[in-house]
Order: sequence, then C-alpha cells, then structure tokens
Amino acid sequence: MKYPRIVQQQWLTHSQLFHVEALSLEFSNGAKRDYERLNPGHDRAVMVLPIRDDDTLILIKEYGAGIDQYHLSFPKGAIDSGEEILDAALRELQEEAGYAATELRLVKQLALSPSYMGNKIHFVVARGLYPSRLEGDEPEPLEVIEWPLSKLSELVLDARFIEAYAMAGLTLLSHHLAAKKTSR
Amino acid sequence: MKYPRIVQQQWLTHSQLFHVEALSLEFSNGAKRDYERLNPGHDRAVMVLPIRDDDTLILIKEYGAGIDQYHLSFPKGAIDSGEEILDAALRELQEEAGYAATELRLVKQLALSPSYMGNKIHFVVARGLYPSRLEGDEPEPLEVIEWPLSKLSELVLDARFIEAYAMAGLTLLSHHLAAKKTSR
Repeated sequence: MKYPRIVQQQWLTHSQLFHVEALSLEFSNGAKRDYERLNPGHDRAVMVLPIRDDDTLILIKEYGAGIDQYHLSFPKGAIDSGEEILDAALRELQEEAGYAATELRLVKQLALSPSYMGNKIHFVVARGLYPSRLEGDEPEPLEVIEWPLSKLSELVLDARFIEAYAMAGLTLLSHHLAAKKTSR
Repeated sequence: MKYPRIVQQQWLTHSQLFHVEALSLEFSNGAKRDYERLNPGHDRAVMVLPIRDDDTLILIKEYGAGIDQYHLSFPKGAIDSGEEILDAALRELQEEAGYAATELRLVKQLALSPSYMGNKIHFVVARGLYPSRLEGDEPEPLEVIEWPLSKLSELVLDARFIEAYAMAGLTLLSHHLAAKKTSR
C-alpha cells in the first residue's frame, strides 16, 4: 500500500516523560485524517526473558503507577543513551532480579501501540544465569518469583500477570524454546 | 506488599487523546518517587482474535501513525461510552475485517504499560465468522489477510507483525485453543 503523506505536523505538548505531536495525514486515496501521537522516535527500551536451569522462568513483582497495582512482569527498562541493547538487558536483569547471564539473545523488537505511540521495545532471552546484583533506581526491592516453565498456562491466566508486553514476551519465549528444541 | 501512598497528584497537560498526570508516591519503606502517568482510568479498548473455519486466523493490515508504518494486527478499537465489551468486539470485527461472529468469548484484560499508562484492553476470541460489514471511520479500507493457524510460528517472526498487543493476543489465542482441545 502507498504510504500516507504528512501534510502537517506540530508539537502539542511536552512533559518530562511524554511528547505529544499533532499529525495531519493524506492517504493515497485522498482521505485526510488528523492524529495525535506520543513519543515519535523516542524511548528505546528492553525487556528480558530470563530462564534459569532450563526449567524456571524468573519473574519480578513490581508496583505500576499507571494502574496503581502490583503485578508480575519481566525485568525491563529504558536503554541509556549510547548503551547497546544487550548491555541494557544485562544491566536491568542485575538491577531488577539480581542475576547476570552468560547468554543473551535478541529475539524481536515490538511497537507498544503503533497507531498512536512511537515507543518500541527489544525482547532479549537470557540464559546461563548466576547471582549478581547492581544498584538500580527502584524505590523498593522487587520481589523475584521463580515460575516453572511447565506451568506457563497458569501464568497466562494469573490475575497478577496483566502486562501486555510481558504477555507478548511469553509468545516470543515459547517460540524461542520451540526453535531451540527443533535445532537439537 | 503494602501499597504506596499517594502524597500528591496533579494534571500536567491534556490533549484530545492524552491526559498526563504528575504523581508523588511514598512507598511503604519510606522511599519517595515522582512519576508521570498517562490516561489513568481512561481508554477501555478491545482487540478481537478472529478464527475462521477452525484453521484460519483473520489479520488486518493497517497504517500506524505512531510508527509511520503499515503492519499486521488484529481488529481493535476503543469501546464507546456505554457500550458492552462484546458488542464493541463485534462492531470492530465488522468495521475492520468485514466479518460478524456467532461466538464471542472474553479471554483476558491486559494493561498496555502498567508503569506509566492507565490504558487497558480486553481480548476477545471470535468464532463462527460470516461476512458482514459495518462502515467505520477508517481513512482507507484495511487489507484482510488469512493466516493458517498451522503457521503461527512464521507469524511470530514476520517483520510486519510487530504490535505488542497483537503478539500478546497470540499467547492468549494459543492458550484458548489448547484449553478447548483439552475440554473436548
């Protein structure tokens, strides 16, 4: 399909975290639409899917200010300026879960909400875990939870496992594990 | 874990789509942090996972202004004020893919980004599809793509399948299909 043409674009507002842009587009069939989008081109982030001893998934429990709720997720965070993706993954894993890893593999990059956000996140599978802690900026230590890989379907339904990114991570993880099995 | 206490909260900025709030929290250990969050309590949405003839997944291809890219996803959209979840799912399915469904099942609700967004989305599996189109507000007709359920692993890796929500939907779909199989 032919791409829409940007007729007009203009910053609407900035806060410390959020940058809102107004966008007027003309589609290839002549239709015009006005959009608002958030953080175009901003906010590279990483989510780590840590596997310990081939049969245990490492989860963290943390407070989410957006929904005012504790929930289960995977270690994640922003990639610092100039930082490599896998370095950021290794740092977040140590800060949030207290593990380092000998094997880090980038699986895929996803967009958070393509229709109105520029935010993207890289998913990294971590294996060969060993205890190693770095001090992060967490307001309180995150609870680390060990979840058997054999019980993934219980995790899917768990009422505390409600982050879209983390659920997307499970798809990527299952795919990664299936591919690994096949290649043996 | 004991919940943090909200010390202060205040609206920072509103645009048509985005509502940014500043939030000062005190955690149970005494640590204080300032946050910004987006759309607290706002934006109920629905994503439909449509299965046709037991072996074909229905995808749509649409333009995402947030990333300025065409991508593959599932029919989705905001729930109108006063609208029931399954009614919204049926409406979006007809507007975006040109199908209605005799069977709609709510699988789970997920949060887009718990740490800084209030946005939530309901996932609905649709079966018993039949052609039926409603006029939506799309600027151009969305391309409808039929994807064999037997080729889900190719979809996971497809460079056009990059929406976190849709990837999360695949986990929920696989879980739903496995549960259905077991209950037979």
